[in-house]
Amino acid sequence: VKTVAIVGTGLIGGSFALALREAGFSGRIAGVSSPGAIREALARGVIEEEMTLAGAAAGADLLYLAQPIGRILRTLKELGAQARAGALITDAGSTKREIVAAAERLLPRGTFLGGHPMAGKESRGVESADAGLFRGFPYVLTPSDEEMLNSGIAQEFVWWLRRIGADVQVMTPAEHDRLVAGTSHLPQLLATALARTLADLEGAERTAGPALRDMTRIASSSFEVWRDILATNPDAIRDVLRRFRTQLDEAERRVGLDSMEELFRQAAEGAQRWRRS
Amino acid sequence: VKTVAIVGTGLIGGSFALALREAGFSGRIAGVSSPGAIREALARGVIEEEMTLAGAAAGADLLYLAQPIGRILRTLKELGAQARAGALITDAGSTKREIVAAAERLLPRGTFLGGHPMAGKESRGVESADAGLFRGFPYVLTPSDEEMLNSGIAQEFVWWLRRIGADVQVMTPAEHDRLVAGTSHLPQLLATALARTLADLEGAERTAGPALRDMTRIASSSFEVWRDILATNPDAIRDVLRRFRTQLDEAERRVGLDSMEELFRQAAEGAQRWRRS
Repeated sequence: VKTVAIVGTGLIGGSFALALREAGFSGRIAGVSSPGAIREALARGVIEEEMTLAGAAAGADLLYLAQPIGRILRTLKELGAQARAGALITDAGSTKREIVAAAERLLPRGTFLGGHPMAGKESRGVESADAGLFRGFPYVLTPSDEEMLNSGIAQEFVWWLRRIGADVQVMTPAEHDRLVAGTSHLPQLLATALARTLADLEGAERTAGPALRDMTRIASSSFEVWRDILATNPDAIRDVLRRFRTQLDEAERRVGLDSMEELFRQAAEGAQRWRRS
Repeated sequence: VKTVAIVGTGLIGGSFALALREAGFSGRIAGVSSPGAIREALARGVIEEEMTLAGAAAGADLLYLAQPIGRILRTLKELGAQARAGALITDAGSTKREIVAAAERLLPRGTFLGGHPMAGKESRGVESADAGLFRGFPYVLTPSDEEMLNSGIAQEFVWWLRRIGADVQVMTPAEHDRLVAGTSHLPQLLATALARTLADLEGAERTAGPALRDMTRIASSSFEVWRDILATNPDAIRDVLRRFRTQLDEAERRVGLDSMEELFRQAAEGAQRWRRS
């Protein structure tokens, strides 16, 4: 990889650029974004130059699409047949079925690799970008076929992902969307519903400790990002909400009973699985 | 205050002792606890000496009861008429109606001031104690009458709470219990139910990012502490669970709709109220 084009120089795109640099990448890093976002990304030293999407399609070895889902879909359409064999187009969109299906339809075979870094913050924009954003967290890749991962450029990309500290996980787009319904979309809806419940509880802030802060941190997430996530995964979200309600009902039934201990134990054991130091 | 007795030298009691020292308290700090807890607290330098509860009642100006609720109730019974006028007994129990009612029944008038620091960690024990634990968070006081706060010893205690960085909030035991049902007990049940939902989702850890970690951190909380909390506040917990379900149902109905934006906005505004930098 000699030239990387970051399409969408916000939190994720900016963090990927900073992480690459910190990991020793010495090629060119260009940005494709709105004039305002490009100005900020240049000012923060996240990219060194601006490119058009057509310029990136012609000149970049790696195109990193770090936009909201709807805009990634539009970018794929714009790229279309411009995508070059030997170059890799990858994305960081939060659901994978629609994006991977669109890429299969629109791009030449073997040029696209779907991705989703399980990293982020409730704040957006390149000013929140952080070279360490991906470190220690899963980075899901959803190749349309496993062979895709054997190309030289895909292997180089995976090598850089590991260099920036990501925990690379390969799965199908469907498996990804089913899992993130539970690990990402459900927590978001819980935080939103919790924050709204407490917004109506006068004086709540007078007893707000660190646990509440943790539990509602993502209630400040951007709807611009979440609109598309929720719209592209409704069935899996409804399924996991149904299972969550069963667990919450069970917990409510055991309020005041010693048998609640079993639920606490199972919850703590579950949380151990995705807990890191 | 010349002599402080920490009754229960775990996370909260140990943190209070460390915080006092860091804030310049130069009197004696003794511990009343099990032999093992005393040994650890001495080793960590959290207390300088061991006391019996009778010794603390006779010799300490401030008794700080930092035990689970059930044990605080037993300590109040043991203290009973031993409590000295001029000394202050305060507690850090997580619900306040039962404790304050018991203290009114068992202790001489004017000797007890209920308290609850909105601070903590999912880990327990003096090894997690931290002088900064209370800084920037609410510390609720629930005097049985407001006059109680005018005694010299109560004023001195409040002065130390402010010195250790706590945000002192005065309210009735009933108001406290109603508010923490939403700001503490509901989040705990949500984290427990979320962690159990995901414990059944095979491969969940492969897509677990920072938001999930935040949302299930307290799923590792100790049931020994939570048994008594839940048992002493069931009605307020059921009430807030009912309101939470209404919000979650509303969110589910709007999955995939632009009208979800309104819920995100209200949630973010709500969360602003208890968010600190």
